[in-house]
Amino acid sequence: MTLMRKPIPVAEAVQRVMQFPRLKEAEAVKLEESTGRVLAQDIYTTHPVPWFTRSPYDGYAICAASTEQAGEGSPVWLQVLGTVAAGDVWRGCVERGQAVKIMTGGAMPDGADAVIMRELTREEERDGALYVQIKRKVKTGENISRIGEDMEEGELLLRQGTMINAGTVAQLATFGYAEVPVFRKPVVAVIATGSELLDPSEPLAPGKIRNSNGYMLLSQVLRSGAEPLYIGKVQDTLGETLAAVKKALEQADLVLTTGGVSVGDFDYIPAVYQELGAQPLFNKIGMRPGSVTSAAERNGKLLFGLSGNPSACYVGFELFARPVIRAMMGMKRPYSQRVQAELQEDFTKPNPFDRFVRGKLSFSGGRLYAAPSGKDKSNIVSSLAEANCLIVLPGGTRGWEAGSMVDVLLLDDQEGTGQWR
Amino acid sequence: MTLMRKPIPVAEAVQRVMQFPRLKEAEAVKLEESTGRVLAQDIYTTHPVPWFTRSPYDGYAICAASTEQAGEGSPVWLQVLGTVAAGDVWRGCVERGQAVKIMTGGAMPDGADAVIMRELTREEERDGALYVQIKRKVKTGENISRIGEDMEEGELLLRQGTMINAGTVAQLATFGYAEVPVFRKPVVAVIATGSELLDPSEPLAPGKIRNSNGYMLLSQVLRSGAEPLYIGKVQDTLGETLAAVKKALEQADLVLTTGGVSVGDFDYIPAVYQELGAQPLFNKIGMRPGSVTSAAERNGKLLFGLSGNPSACYVGFELFARPVIRAMMGMKRPYSQRVQAELQEDFTKPNPFDRFVRGKLSFSGGRLYAAPSGKDKSNIVSSLAEANCLIVLPGGTRGWEAGSMVDVLLLDDQEGTGQWR
Repeated sequence: MTLMRKPIPVAEAVQRVMQFPRLKEAEAVKLEESTGRVLAQDIYTTHPVPWFTRSPYDGYAICAASTEQAGEGSPVWLQVLGTVAAGDVWRGCVERGQAVKIMTGGAMPDGADAVIMRELTREEERDGALYVQIKRKVKTGENISRIGEDMEEGELLLRQGTMINAGTVAQLATFGYAEVPVFRKPVVAVIATGSELLDPSEPLAPGKIRNSNGYMLLSQVLRSGAEPLYIGKVQDTLGETLAAVKKALEQADLVLTTGGVSVGDFDYIPAVYQELGAQPLFNKIGMRPGSVTSAAERNGKLLFGLSGNPSACYVGFELFARPVIRAMMGMKRPYSQRVQAELQEDFTKPNPFDRFVRGKLSFSGGRLYAAPSGKDKSNIVSSLAEANCLIVLPGGTRGWEAGSMVDVLLLDDQEGTGQWR
Repeated sequence: MTLMRKPIPVAEAVQRVMQFPRLKEAEAVKLEESTGRVLAQDIYTTHPVPWFTRSPYDGYAICAASTEQAGEGSPVWLQVLGTVAAGDVWRGCVERGQAVKIMTGGAMPDGADAVIMRELTREEERDGALYVQIKRKVKTGENISRIGEDMEEGELLLRQGTMINAGTVAQLATFGYAEVPVFRKPVVAVIATGSELLDPSEPLAPGKIRNSNGYMLLSQVLRSGAEPLYIGKVQDTLGETLAAVKKALEQADLVLTTGGVSVGDFDYIPAVYQELGAQPLFNKIGMRPGSVTSAAERNGKLLFGLSGNPSACYVGFELFARPVIRAMMGMKRPYSQRVQAELQEDFTKPNPFDRFVRGKLSFSGGRLYAAPSGKDKSNIVSSLAEANCLIVLPGGTRGWEAGSMVDVLLLDDQEGTGQWR
């Protein structure tokens, strides 16, 4: 099959695939299983915080007026009626000359309008009754957390599209969200094409190599937040490849293949797209590695034809599939965050194409540095392990020298950004 | 119960708990389930890469000697014997005047010692035989990937203690690690103490609030890489608290409680430690928030008594429990990475204690910036949601002004560091 291959810029390729992500439906998950999921609706406070007047300290709930005459040399003694612990409610009223011992978080008894901290008092028992000594004047309202002081009822707490972390879990718990509305995780199918591929469990055989890209993609899908579905490896035949892609389309929201997109005699992905009647979005991108990265759309589902070359496959996923997946998950900021960093190694050879070099971002003295993570030879897997960013080297007539400021796409970051750049 | 509380510095508290982490035993997990796990042994390459001589391009495998006379004006024609695809082995020998069409990754046929790229050739059929035209001299060894060119057999590939990511999964797959030796995940029990606590599913009741810390901790345990086990919430009684902690000690490798560590009348954690015969490690730290953070050790298992205050609980977990958990997981770099960033807001009030302010780290123009993530009032949960770092403000006689360089502990980072500072 001969194919017209017209390279398009990376930004355009991103834009073409980002037309298609369909938001997944909402589902309810238990709060304790919601970490890493994305909120499917805005969340509002369901009550004020605090929702009752309470003491922020261990101390004594009193009427401030009882201490009007109190001073260092003229202590007042208030009768301690009892104790209100956190979670308790004092059934009774505090009057002048009286006090109720109160624990941090305890509800203020009726009648009391101030708290004096325990450290400033002294208790004494007399004639079977308990008294507390106070040596200073306390103001009305002192040491009281008032209803709604921190938040009002009905305030917007969290926006739809927020990824849930430990902090948001605390907020959801506070307001009684035992179940949380989240978007369903997209199911992302992975198919590795290539007659040369062995499963990792298979012994080596002449001419064969292990399928590493398929497993790498499963892990990249996990990092993106979606649910990976491994369809398997297929021989380089149109029939087998087509059958696998069809199966994947039935079971998944998005289909990733690796391999079979080049111009070799056994590269069947373009033919598979044609057989399926999928609309091609691109089959060549002005970038290295990954220039043969392809994408097509069928009934709103995207098919990504990633390169069979490990680093090209890796980069192709991060640049094109990840933002689509994160948009499907409902994230408002689906793109990888792009930051600036000082390049730590020379790339002196000019390259007409935009290059994406797997790199390691590091910090020193308040500044960001990026170094390529190992030899960036496209057929070496070892450089992938330490990578936590992609260094962006725009194509042009000059190389890049150590010390230059370059753009870097963050891979481990969860925050993301709302625009490709 | 009266308790001597002697504050110790944060670094000393960290050091005290870091004596105890016990490495978990190794277990084998499937490669596709190994992401986020920690390697329990060094991993070596099991074969050279490539492990057979292969072609890096689509082209023709030839004897270089066949092209000795080739030039722009004097093309040579070689007979094409057939095609070797990736995964195939050519059964036969290539001699002078012959060629075998070869696909990227295909094994070099016997006799062939060079590959000419397809783009530089032209095929033609004559009298039922296929010929390829070559117009340039090809050198012996040209365009051949040699055995061991990228890696030798027996090279150290990944170190024990490495956290597995997409790149390492690819490496493990390449070398046939269908199962991966990893350390068992520590099981971390979470108990929320407090008679005032309601489950998120329970309706509000007078004097009560929802248990947010327990659920927050479950999420923090997940982020640390361990397996959370929710024991539940308990009333503020010695009996109930003790029973829950005993249960947790039976089922878990590490026990976290939140609440009950202050000096209130219903703070039973110190008494629980005493009842259990646990060795106290500290019960007061010179820091804010979280000064009452406590820890004890019993038969090599650690018990952390985190504050009931949400931000103190959060900070206490990240500073003390997380490095312990990550050391138990076998990570060589269990501490949160500490970087420098420019403070974006004033903290002008001097504070004698080290402060840890939940913050948001951001990047601009190649520099790091840190801002407190919302109001840092300790009883407000809202500031926790955006936090991706802890801003470290050492105690002293002066405040901190916007523009100062401060240390920041990274919370989402997986890389970590080998030393507390």
